[in-house]
Amino acid sequence: MQLNFFSFPRRFYSTLRLPPTLLLGPGPSNPNPRTLASLSLNTVGHLHPSFLQLMSNIQHLLRSTFKTHNDATLALSGSGAACMEASLVNLLEVGDSIIIGCNGYWGDRVTNLALRHGFKPIRVESPWGQLIPTSLLVDAVKTHKAKALFIIHGESSTGICQPLENLGEICQKLGTFLIVDAVVTLGGMPLLTDVSNIDIVYSGAQKCLSAPPGVSPISFSPRAIQQIKSRKTPISCFYLDIIELLKYWGSDRIYHHTSSINNFYALHEALSILKEETLEASWERHRSVSNLLYDGLKDLGLKLLVDDPSHRLIPLTTVKIPDGIDGKKIQNHLLTNYNIEIAGGFGQLAGKIWRIGLMGHNSRPENVHLLLSALKQSFKDLYKL
Amino acid sequence: MQLNFFSFPRRFYSTLRLPPTLLLGPGPSNPNPRTLASLSLNTVGHLHPSFLQLMSNIQHLLRSTFKTHNDATLALSGSGAACMEASLVNLLEVGDSIIIGCNGYWGDRVTNLALRHGFKPIRVESPWGQLIPTSLLVDAVKTHKAKALFIIHGESSTGICQPLENLGEICQKLGTFLIVDAVVTLGGMPLLTDVSNIDIVYSGAQKCLSAPPGVSPISFSPRAIQQIKSRKTPISCFYLDIIELLKYWGSDRIYHHTSSINNFYALHEALSILKEETLEASWERHRSVSNLLYDGLKDLGLKLLVDDPSHRLIPLTTVKIPDGIDGKKIQNHLLTNYNIEIAGGFGQLAGKIWRIGLMGHNSRPENVHLLLSALKQSFKDLYKL
Repeated sequence: MQLNFFSFPRRFYSTLRLPPTLLLGPGPSNPNPRTLASLSLNTVGHLHPSFLQLMSNIQHLLRSTFKTHNDATLALSGSGAACMEASLVNLLEVGDSIIIGCNGYWGDRVTNLALRHGFKPIRVESPWGQLIPTSLLVDAVKTHKAKALFIIHGESSTGICQPLENLGEICQKLGTFLIVDAVVTLGGMPLLTDVSNIDIVYSGAQKCLSAPPGVSPISFSPRAIQQIKSRKTPISCFYLDIIELLKYWGSDRIYHHTSSINNFYALHEALSILKEETLEASWERHRSVSNLLYDGLKDLGLKLLVDDPSHRLIPLTTVKIPDGIDGKKIQNHLLTNYNIEIAGGFGQLAGKIWRIGLMGHNSRPENVHLLLSALKQSFKDLYKL
Repeated sequence: MQLNFFSFPRRFYSTLRLPPTLLLGPGPSNPNPRTLASLSLNTVGHLHPSFLQLMSNIQHLLRSTFKTHNDATLALSGSGAACMEASLVNLLEVGDSIIIGCNGYWGDRVTNLALRHGFKPIRVESPWGQLIPTSLLVDAVKTHKAKALFIIHGESSTGICQPLENLGEICQKLGTFLIVDAVVTLGGMPLLTDVSNIDIVYSGAQKCLSAPPGVSPISFSPRAIQQIKSRKTPISCFYLDIIELLKYWGSDRIYHHTSSINNFYALHEALSILKEETLEASWERHRSVSNLLYDGLKDLGLKLLVDDPSHRLIPLTTVKIPDGIDGKKIQNHLLTNYNIEIAGGFGQLAGKIWRIGLMGHNSRPENVHLLLSALKQSFKDLYKL
C-alpha cells in the first residue's frame, strides 16, 4: 500500500516501542548500559577541541585493543562492511590480484567486492565449517605473488576461527600484504596485529566491543600506508580514502566528513570498559563463558558444527539443528516468548545450524543459563521433548 | 608523543567531559533533547520485526519530508558525504559525463569524486558567493547531453541557495538525470522533489533535521532506479549500492550490512518531531528566525555576503568580517566564553566571512538574541568597539 504523505497517519510518530531483546546472535550484542547512556551526551562539533581530544583517546585505546603501534589506527563512520571495502580499495589498484581464504559467507563477500572494483580474486577454498589448511594459503602466496592475502579471522557464518600462524611473516617476505577481518574476534579472542605482521585489520563496533553499530575500527601498518601513498591511480572511493581520513584524524585536522559524533562517545566508552577489564581478562571471560555454553549444549544432547575446540570461534558458537526440528520455529519461539535472539545459518548451512553469540557485554554466565533453560523449554513446548 | 599501550595512562578512560556547546555553525546542530534521548534506547537486532517496522516508518517519514512518492527512499549508514558519493557511483559508469554547478566548496568536492571514479566532469562555474545563472546550466544540458546534472541546492561554504526552477523538466526532456544535494536545505527550506523532477536527492541528519550525524537520507526516482538497473557495469562500491540496499529496505529484507540501529531511532524521532510541527511550519520558522538574525546583524553594523534576500540559504547565513577584525579570534572568544560555535569561511572565502547556522532545533529566536548579544560583547572585549 502506497501511503499519501498528505494523509500521514498519527501513529507513525508515536513513541518508539522496542522490546528488551537479549541479543545472542552474530551481532549486534547488547551494549553495556554505560556505553548506551554515553550515546545521549550532548553533541559537540566535529572539530571542537574536546572532540579532537576524544578522537585521539579513541586512537590510543584502539591501538591497545588491536595490539599494534600503527599510527594509522582510527574508526570509520560506517559499518564493518565499509571497513572491508576500505581495506580493499585503499590497497589495491585495478588489475591487482588478491588471494582470498574462502570457507564461508565472508570470503564470498570479499570475492564479490574484489570483482566489482576490478581486482582479480584468487580463491583458496575449504568447505563451510572447516579450516583452510595454512599450507594451501602459503602455497597460493608463493605461487601467485598477489598484492594481498585476505583472511577472515572469525567466519561468523560457520563459527570457524582461521589461525593466522606465520602467514604475516611469509607474506612480508614475499611482498604480499596481509588483510585480516577481525569483526567477530576483536576484544573476544587473541588478536595480535603487530606480532602477526598484519598489514590491514578491521572490526565492527557491535560484536565483542558491545558498542552500537555505526562506527568501525581499522588499522593500517606503516608498510601498507607507504604502499597506498605510492599508488599509481587515485583511491576511487573518497568516503573510504584512508589518506584523506588521516588528514582529519592526524594533526592537520582537515575536514573530511561530519563524523558520527555520538557514536564515537559510545565507542570511547566501550573501549574504556574493555581497558578497565583488560584485554586479556576479556579473552579469558569469553573463553570460559563459551565453555559453559558448550557443556550445557552437550547436556541437552546438541552437537556443535565445529568439532575441534581449537578451531572454534569463541564468541560465536554454531550448533547443529537435530533431525526433525525446525530451527526457525525454535528461534521464533525464543524471540516471542523470551525476547532472546539467536540466528540460523545461511548459504550452505541454511536450516542446518543455529548461531549463538556470546559477545562483549553479553558474554556472561547468566546469559548462558537463561538461554539453555529457554531452549530446553522451547523443545518441550514445541516438540514435547 | 607515541604512547606505549602497556603504560596506558588511567585518565584516558575517565568520564567523557563535553562542553554544553550551542552549535551555530554549518552543522551539526544540537539535537532536540527528545531525539538525543532516543539514541540510548535498547539496541535491537537489525532484522528484528520491531526494527523492520521502524525502517518502514522512517521511509514514510522521509518521503513526506522530501515531498516525494519515490519508493527508493531510505537512509544510508554514513554521512552526507557518503550520500554524495552514492548518488554518483550508482547512476554513472566509467566514461559518463556529468555537468556540475560549481560556485563553492561542494561543487569542487563533486568534481573530485567524479574524477576519482572515472567520470567526466563538465564544470559550470560562478564566483563563490554568487548564483549560477540557470541559463548557463540549461545551455550546458542542451550542449553536452551529459548523463547527469549535479546541483548543490544549499552551498554551505558561501550561503547561496541555488534555485532549481525548471531544471528538472528540461533535464528529463533531454535524457539527463538531475542530482540535488539538499544537505543544508532539507527541512529548513522548500524542497519539492517530485514537483521539481529531481532524480536523486540526499541530505544529512545533522543539519535542519537535528538528528545526530551518522545516517543520511537519500531518494531515487523510479526513472533513476530503472537507469541503474540497466547499467552495463556493476556498481563499484558495495557499501553504497542502492540496488543491494533496496533488498534490505524493501520486502525481501536481505542482509546487506549491520545498519546504525540506534541512529535510526534518533532519525525516526527527529523526523517525527518535524512531522508534528509540519514541514511548512518548519520552513516558515527557519525563515522568520533567520530574518531576526539579518536585522540584528544589520543593527551591529555587519553586512551579509549574499545581498539579495532571495538568493540566501536560509538555514546558513554568511556574514562579512569587518576590516580590522580577526574572524578566528572572535570565533574562539565566542566558543571559550559563551560555548557558542560559529564557523569561518574557507577556500576563496577564508578569513573573509563567518558562517552562522540556525538549523532545525536551533532555529529559535532565543538563540539569535544570545548570539547577537555575545557577538556584541566580544567586539567590546577584544576591540573596544
